[in-house]
Amino acid sequence: MSETIIIDTDPGQDDAVAILLAVAACEQLALACVTTVAGNVPVAQTTANALRVLDLAGRADIPVYRGAERPLIVALETAEFVCGPDGLDGSGLPPPSREADAGHAVDAIIRRLRAAADGLTLCPLGPLTNLALAFRLAPDILPKIRRIVLMGGAIGLGNITPAAEFNMHVDPHAAAIVFDCGRPIIMMGLGVTLKAIATHEQIAGFATLGTAAGRSIHGMLTRPRPGSLGTVGHPMHDPCVIAYLLWPELFSGRDCHVAIATEDGPMRGRTTIDWNGRLKRPANAHVIAEVEAHELFERVTRLIATLP
Amino acid sequence: MSETIIIDTDPGQDDAVAILLAVAACEQLALACVTTVAGNVPVAQTTANALRVLDLAGRADIPVYRGAERPLIVALETAEFVCGPDGLDGSGLPPPSREADAGHAVDAIIRRLRAAADGLTLCPLGPLTNLALAFRLAPDILPKIRRIVLMGGAIGLGNITPAAEFNMHVDPHAAAIVFDCGRPIIMMGLGVTLKAIATHEQIAGFATLGTAAGRSIHGMLTRPRPGSLGTVGHPMHDPCVIAYLLWPELFSGRDCHVAIATEDGPMRGRTTIDWNGRLKRPANAHVIAEVEAHELFERVTRLIATLP
Amino acid sequence: MSETIIIDTDPGQDDAVAILLAVAACEQLALACVTTVAGNVPVAQTTANALRVLDLAGRADIPVYRGAERPLIVALETAEFVCGPDGLDGSGLPPPSREADAGHAVDAIIRRLRAAADGLTLCPLGPLTNLALAFRLAPDILPKIRRIVLMGGAIGLGNITPAAEFNMHVDPHAAAIVFDCGRPIIMMGLGVTLKAIATHEQIAGFATLGTAAGRSIHGMLTRPRPGSLGTVGHPMHDPCVIAYLLWPELFSGRDCHVAIATEDGPMRGRTTIDWNGRLKRPANAHVIAEVEAHELFERVTRLIATLP
Amino acid sequence: MSETIIIDTDPGQDDAVAILLAVAACEQLALACVTTVAGNVPVAQTTANALRVLDLAGRADIPVYRGAERPLIVALETAEFVCGPDGLDGSGLPPPSREADAGHAVDAIIRRLRAAADGLTLCPLGPLTNLALAFRLAPDILPKIRRIVLMGGAIGLGNITPAAEFNMHVDPHAAAIVFDCGRPIIMMGLGVTLKAIATHEQIAGFATLGTAAGRSIHGMLTRPRPGSLGTVGHPMHDPCVIAYLLWPELFSGRDCHVAIATEDGPMRGRTTIDWNGRLKRPANAHVIAEVEAHELFERVTRLIATLP
Repeated sequence: MSETIIIDTDPGQDDAVAILLAVAACEQLALACVTTVAGNVPVAQTTANALRVLDLAGRADIPVYRGAERPLIVALETAEFVCGPDGLDGSGLPPPSREADAGHAVDAIIRRLRAAADGLTLCPLGPLTNLALAFRLAPDILPKIRRIVLMGGAIGLGNITPAAEFNMHVDPHAAAIVFDCGRPIIMMGLGVTLKAIATHEQIAGFATLGTAAGRSIHGMLTRPRPGSLGTVGHPMHDPCVIAYLLWPELFSGRDCHVAIATEDGPMRGRTTIDWNGRLKRPANAHVIAEVEAHELFERVTRLIATLP
Repeated sequence: MSETIIIDTDPGQDDAVAILLAVAACEQLALACVTTVAGNVPVAQTTANALRVLDLAGRADIPVYRGAERPLIVALETAEFVCGPDGLDGSGLPPPSREADAGHAVDAIIRRLRAAADGLTLCPLGPLTNLALAFRLAPDILPKIRRIVLMGGAIGLGNITPAAEFNMHVDPHAAAIVFDCGRPIIMMGLGVTLKAIATHEQIAGFATLGTAAGRSIHGMLTRPRPGSLGTVGHPMHDPCVIAYLLWPELFSGRDCHVAIATEDGPMRGRTTIDWNGRLKRPANAHVIAEVEAHELFERVTRLIATLP
Repeated sequence: MSETIIIDTDPGQDDAVAILLAVAACEQLALACVTTVAGNVPVAQTTANALRVLDLAGRADIPVYRGAERPLIVALETAEFVCGPDGLDGSGLPPPSREADAGHAVDAIIRRLRAAADGLTLCPLGPLTNLALAFRLAPDILPKIRRIVLMGGAIGLGNITPAAEFNMHVDPHAAAIVFDCGRPIIMMGLGVTLKAIATHEQIAGFATLGTAAGRSIHGMLTRPRPGSLGTVGHPMHDPCVIAYLLWPELFSGRDCHVAIATEDGPMRGRTTIDWNGRLKRPANAHVIAEVEAHELFERVTRLIATLP
Repeated sequence: MSETIIIDTDPGQDDAVAILLAVAACEQLALACVTTVAGNVPVAQTTANALRVLDLAGRADIPVYRGAERPLIVALETAEFVCGPDGLDGSGLPPPSREADAGHAVDAIIRRLRAAADGLTLCPLGPLTNLALAFRLAPDILPKIRRIVLMGGAIGLGNITPAAEFNMHVDPHAAAIVFDCGRPIIMMGLGVTLKAIATHEQIAGFATLGTAAGRSIHGMLTRPRPGSLGTVGHPMHDPCVIAYLLWPELFSGRDCHVAIATEDGPMRGRTTIDWNGRLKRPANAHVIAEVEAHELFERVTRLIATLP
């Protein structure tokens, strides 16, 4: 029995791999639609990128809805310095074959949740703006959310700032709304995703799959990256979200209270994770801390190999 | 030539008078619809109240759309201790004759702005949640806003807290979004609305109009109020918004930069108004400071007298 | 029976008038010493100015102790644009005849309070840095403080920023410490001091006293001032503190809770005054709101006339 | 040639070990005096404890000055739940043989720095209140500080809260002052001190030294501790400070910008450490991240063995 999901995303190379992984796992996961948001690059580009990635996967049938073009309160900051000018540097993908579907991502999320008898799982891979807007416009959808498995936050150092991971930094107010929503949240923060590093051999393996998807992933994972801090391999932040749905046994974590710093200043977007239960506040997220990285990439590669 | 307006409101007694005034001024103002928001009382009640007031005015033809049931980030705080359990204490109004129109207030605001060739004027009388959601969901509507004439904020003391006026306190993040929207804003804060006090004779005059609207207004303005601090008469916060559209010559103010304190704590919802231009930042609002109160109520009464 | 006071000050023209007034009132007030702090100008200059003013008053016997050269946490901001490069523009005073006394202002405050069998009254006219340091270094002195009559804060608009009065803005953390000290505080904020305006005739009267003090005060009060916003006359912020000790019957106010905004940003230094008791928190200050200005200046002039 | 140091401390078991280590290292370190501060327990008790520990070391000749009894702005929070009611649970130490020396810790720090021709090294092991007060009272002492080697802060999780290490949490404003002082700071945060864990064998080794100091240390390190989270051994937070002075080759770290969160709320006391230089701000501390723990405890034990 498969789990129906919506991927809310700002591709982004690792978003792209996550989408490909979800499509490849179509026996276990039903990807209802992809919704886009401003983040790594502006929303016009993240929307084009979602379409390009679905073209690559041969799934131009999956609807794509364009979403929020800026965060709730703070000004948009993008990350072309990491992702390249089009957000998919290294992918070698052509322009999309189609336009996004009519209607706003937020309306699509609301409509599909209302229509889902058994609920849906939300998989946000970028700033949480769309989800936050949907939760405030249509609080009736909350009980329809089976769970939210998201990439974002950090128990230790951030990446875009010392305090914050990029997605949380870009829209801290949306994050505060989502972490306060009362539904089950599984948080894939930097604490785990920086451990989800493919080896050089595993990355090289994508090139030898002999498929377009394999070549594109290899190109994206081997592009020169600024600020990579000399790490070996390429962290696979967003694919962890899909991998968790498929193979939860590869991950471990803890139920924690997570607070989001929304104030402007050096702490903005900080996820304060009460890992040791100091504050005696109820947990609002299951924070993943460990992953069996080698096995993860073996499985990811096998699934990606099934794509064209 | 008339100005088409949307009233976004959380009635509330003075909201009710503002709606009645707008209906009575139908030669100058075209009330496209009324949208409701949680504020003085929860949104189910503010929606019922908007319908009740339009019934009283004989205008059950004007659409009413129900909006946000809570602020963007902070928890909802209501003011039954001021407005009474149903928000219209003293009005003597029966239950509404109809239900609200289908669709969300935010969608109605977006749809009508998009459809308005010459734009619309927004008249928010409560927390700014609906406007904030609309601006983030559909930034394309911003150029269609002719102006925003709002009740909220304080240059001096607040009312719900020492720092803040009620509407700004209830949803400070929405206020920050609206004041940052780049469209012309006319702000009717406590600095002016606490000067818009009807005399006892003027309030008594409503009772002698011999109309249902007059009787209802008289009942609302003469009910016992907690925290009235011994002021004579009843401040007419929200009617100032409509009165400004009709008779701008009765008001005076200044273009200022207004900053909203969003952080939790004693300053939450504070509108810091740079009345003397200390900060050299561009003005984002025209802040009204003075009103000719006696003449205002003479004119209000004459218009109200035209209602059934 | 006289009240012994310490004036803690950053002269500043109106500080100078306050010091002169205290000296002139030597039958009612025993000025134990003057302590200086960085504020209007750096502390080397405020110290020189305190000495110059006491020279003018013929009281080079009163000790002057130099104090803090910067605020507790934030960087020092001075106000030469208001006070002139030496802080006493218009005074025509020569350099001081002596140096400050040995020892730090904070140590002087501690030592004199410890030695005062019946306690002392503190009269801070500038940023509250010295008092805050003394209270934290020597909490045993707190019971020896009879009362603190201070100039600072605003119930409405600030002066240095829209939110804050200068003294509170310059060292908000010190202000937070002082307002939390548990001793009786009388607050002379802009709400009252901007009403303490001498008429042109009253200001001219200082010149006709035929004394050096009169000429100096006249020169300071009639100098060109930036940002005077077209007000008639010259507000006498700091002299209100001394005047309150002499003639409390000219002032009226209310016991209130006052909270200080210490965070960086547009609210920094805001004194949120719970004038209407909304927060139900215990009062920590008596906030003066009204003054009989004309009578005040008549009395000030009569006292100043007794100086050389 | 030895380095003269002042230990500013709130003993606390690991403070006690640090003091003993400094005394034992008298050939390399000249301990000018010990100053005390409120932290683990109130300052009367931390002062008694410093005296008790020096008694144990046979060094009742080293002056002890009592310091601040509360943090600058926030209310004091203590940690009896960790340290026991007297702060030295498990030590078995008798009451002190003497009283503290006359004069305030802050004055002692100022006086000794002024008198030190070649400067002094400050070793704060508790909240930074005394240092902050000294820096603001006597900024002339700053150039006399050779370096500040402090225990406090966290690059990852805090201990007293998820965001903050205890010393930073207790007086975040003092920490902000110290980290802004412009002098060389070596920061021993939880990132390293939680790696400075003695093995069971090493801890047992203290008992077999056959000395009073060894027995007392063994008692303190083996007492039951709440919140020890199942860690093996006992982290030696404060001794790392002294060890760094003796054996810097056992430690490694990086020059970083460190920002302190002073605002009240869940981030209070957070040390945001820009380990990867994201913010391009000048470094204000050398943040230690690694220690050779086994070798550290071998050396600590050998030195402690020289004590009575």
